[in-house]
Amino acid sequence: MNRERIYLDHAAGSSLGLRVRAEMDRVLGWSGAAPSGGHREGREAREELTKARGRVADFLGAKDAEGVIFTSGGTEAVQSGIRGWGEAVGKGTLYLSSMEHPAVESAARQLEKKGFGLVRIPVDGEGKLRWEAVKGLSGEGLVCVHLAHHDLGTVQNLSEAKRFAERTGAKLFLDGTHGAGWVSLDVEKVGADLVALSGHRLGGPKGVGALWIRSGTRWMSWLEGGRQEGDRRAGTENLSAIVGFGVAAEEWRKDGEERRKQSGKAQKILADGILKKVHTAKLHGTKLGAERSPAHLAFSFKGLEAESLALVLDRVGLAVRGGSGCVTREMKIPPAMKAIGAKEGEARALILFTLGLNSQAEQMEEAVTRVAEGVDRLTKALPGSRE
Amino acid sequence: MNRERIYLDHAAGSSLGLRVRAEMDRVLGWSGAAPSGGHREGREAREELTKARGRVADFLGAKDAEGVIFTSGGTEAVQSGIRGWGEAVGKGTLYLSSMEHPAVESAARQLEKKGFGLVRIPVDGEGKLRWEAVKGLSGEGLVCVHLAHHDLGTVQNLSEAKRFAERTGAKLFLDGTHGAGWVSLDVEKVGADLVALSGHRLGGPKGVGALWIRSGTRWMSWLEGGRQEGDRRAGTENLSAIVGFGVAAEEWRKDGEERRKQSGKAQKILADGILKKVHTAKLHGTKLGAERSPAHLAFSFKGLEAESLALVLDRVGLAVRGGSGCVTREMKIPPAMKAIGAKEGEARALILFTLGLNSQAEQMEEAVTRVAEGVDRLTKALPGSRE
Repeated sequence: MNRERIYLDHAAGSSLGLRVRAEMDRVLGWSGAAPSGGHREGREAREELTKARGRVADFLGAKDAEGVIFTSGGTEAVQSGIRGWGEAVGKGTLYLSSMEHPAVESAARQLEKKGFGLVRIPVDGEGKLRWEAVKGLSGEGLVCVHLAHHDLGTVQNLSEAKRFAERTGAKLFLDGTHGAGWVSLDVEKVGADLVALSGHRLGGPKGVGALWIRSGTRWMSWLEGGRQEGDRRAGTENLSAIVGFGVAAEEWRKDGEERRKQSGKAQKILADGILKKVHTAKLHGTKLGAERSPAHLAFSFKGLEAESLALVLDRVGLAVRGGSGCVTREMKIPPAMKAIGAKEGEARALILFTLGLNSQAEQMEEAVTRVAEGVDRLTKALPGSRE
Repeated sequence: MNRERIYLDHAAGSSLGLRVRAEMDRVLGWSGAAPSGGHREGREAREELTKARGRVADFLGAKDAEGVIFTSGGTEAVQSGIRGWGEAVGKGTLYLSSMEHPAVESAARQLEKKGFGLVRIPVDGEGKLRWEAVKGLSGEGLVCVHLAHHDLGTVQNLSEAKRFAERTGAKLFLDGTHGAGWVSLDVEKVGADLVALSGHRLGGPKGVGALWIRSGTRWMSWLEGGRQEGDRRAGTENLSAIVGFGVAAEEWRKDGEERRKQSGKAQKILADGILKKVHTAKLHGTKLGAERSPAHLAFSFKGLEAESLALVLDRVGLAVRGGSGCVTREMKIPPAMKAIGAKEGEARALILFTLGLNSQAEQMEEAVTRVAEGVDRLTKALPGSRE
């Protein structure tokens, strides 16, 4: 089979845009000097660092660029955001759903071990957090909410999260590692206090992310050593990646609306096509529109185990993710599928289709054909198949 | 002034070798798939990851490649190595000098806050650790030693460190973030249990490092979330950087001896030239030879404050580091200079010259001329100069 491959696992890892790569390459060709150097080479590096920081701040709509701390990626941004807040306040309560990304969940559990309380936010059948039912506790608090869910693609209502945080006197941590860019975001409007971003999910390189901290928020440095990032994140700056991230952020700021529109079109062709051609398909999470990331589809195919189907789809030239995008060893069933009340069979059948900046609407018809072909092949191969 | 610049701040950040860059570029041009993907793109990424892991293990002389965990850099490798050991054992004693890199020092202090004891290893006038005077305590212990000192360039005697660790029943943590490559290393011969490496100090890219853990060593994951790196380090793998690091490690394994020899020659021209032409110069740490990294010189110039001299040297086309390579805010005087008993004036005058893989012996004569010129200019500019 010699078909051109279609790659729809962009949330796990995506290719670089041309300008991002060119700008990274420019910096990689330099002396390699660190921004801390007092020499000309160091000053040049420092200027690039400052420019990238400004670009990420602008992307976030943040007034204070100094609030941006570059990290090694989304995971570190999440972990240092939550654990750094916990270290700073000493004790308090975390408010989060039971379907957060493992980076958030494990940070919360680390704080729980130190005596923090965890209050779980209920989730409805589409994966939307239901704030109205939650009771806030006194003392320090951190509301942890994601922008778009990493498995379901469901977009959360941040105004409700913020209102709850205000009512409770808690700070608001936003996990934007999934959804940023694809979902419009302005941290000042949202009123977030801590925001985590992943570079590669914005079309930037891997190995870089950012934690934005609102000035005055209690927080302690998590990775200690040298004095980089204003004494807030030690370690030689990954300058080429930071520059690439900055460019990616700037492109989103400029082209975000158009990108969201185009991706939404491609997503619609894919989703509608699958639902039309494959009668065992079920879309999980919210329906297409403002409450779903335009880059994300979560399907189950009745009776087909996810990993097997993903392997068959790989054979017919379609790369997707079988099972949750990110689970810990103990999570045999994706927590999000459990949280929305999916049946166990559906939970085991979860297939994620995630679009990237280079996913073309034209490819989606062909992707649909391949999904139908793969489902058909696997169904026929199963013993006792009723097809 | 239009002279070609000479860059001698390689320990802070260095340029990439041609093959390292080409291999990184090859991977950057791919789909960007994560090694966790079950599809063809993921398998290709996984093969690259495995190959790089093997190369780093070979470089270390480690029998067990699975012991290599890729991190975001040397700082994370150090922090997660020491703090991860501490989390795993719960309580015990750390043995370390008072001139370790801030990443080591701060990890030790974090554990001290949790009840761990700190025992300081004395240092002689050349920066060598004096193990014979140290008394081991009962219970769990971790001996923290560096391969080469980040400011002085002094190479430590690892056999003595290992003997002390064995006598005390402690594990041995080796901070190889400075010195690896430049100083021959075989973790099996040394008998180290945990080893931290920095990618960029080996000619690889920034944003990547490694923690090697001997099988069976008690240790707990420090960055949690996804299941990457065998559940030991969460976060999407920075594959292009890991591949570059692997190539850099392989090159060191093949060419290390020749590189050390060439660098030693260049270093000698620079050191001898400075000592001959600048009568106020003083070399700190060990003399040139096996006990000093061949890429590292620590000088003070009597009566000249380091930062001012570094600025003047920058003006005459020589990029060096003025002051310690890495200090925390509270360290007004580099701890190493204090530890070796340097006078306060000397400590404030510390200039680091660090060589890289592209530092040519031919450049060193010119570097000497520029040092002499810079010292002369600054000396004459000082009020009340006796020159």
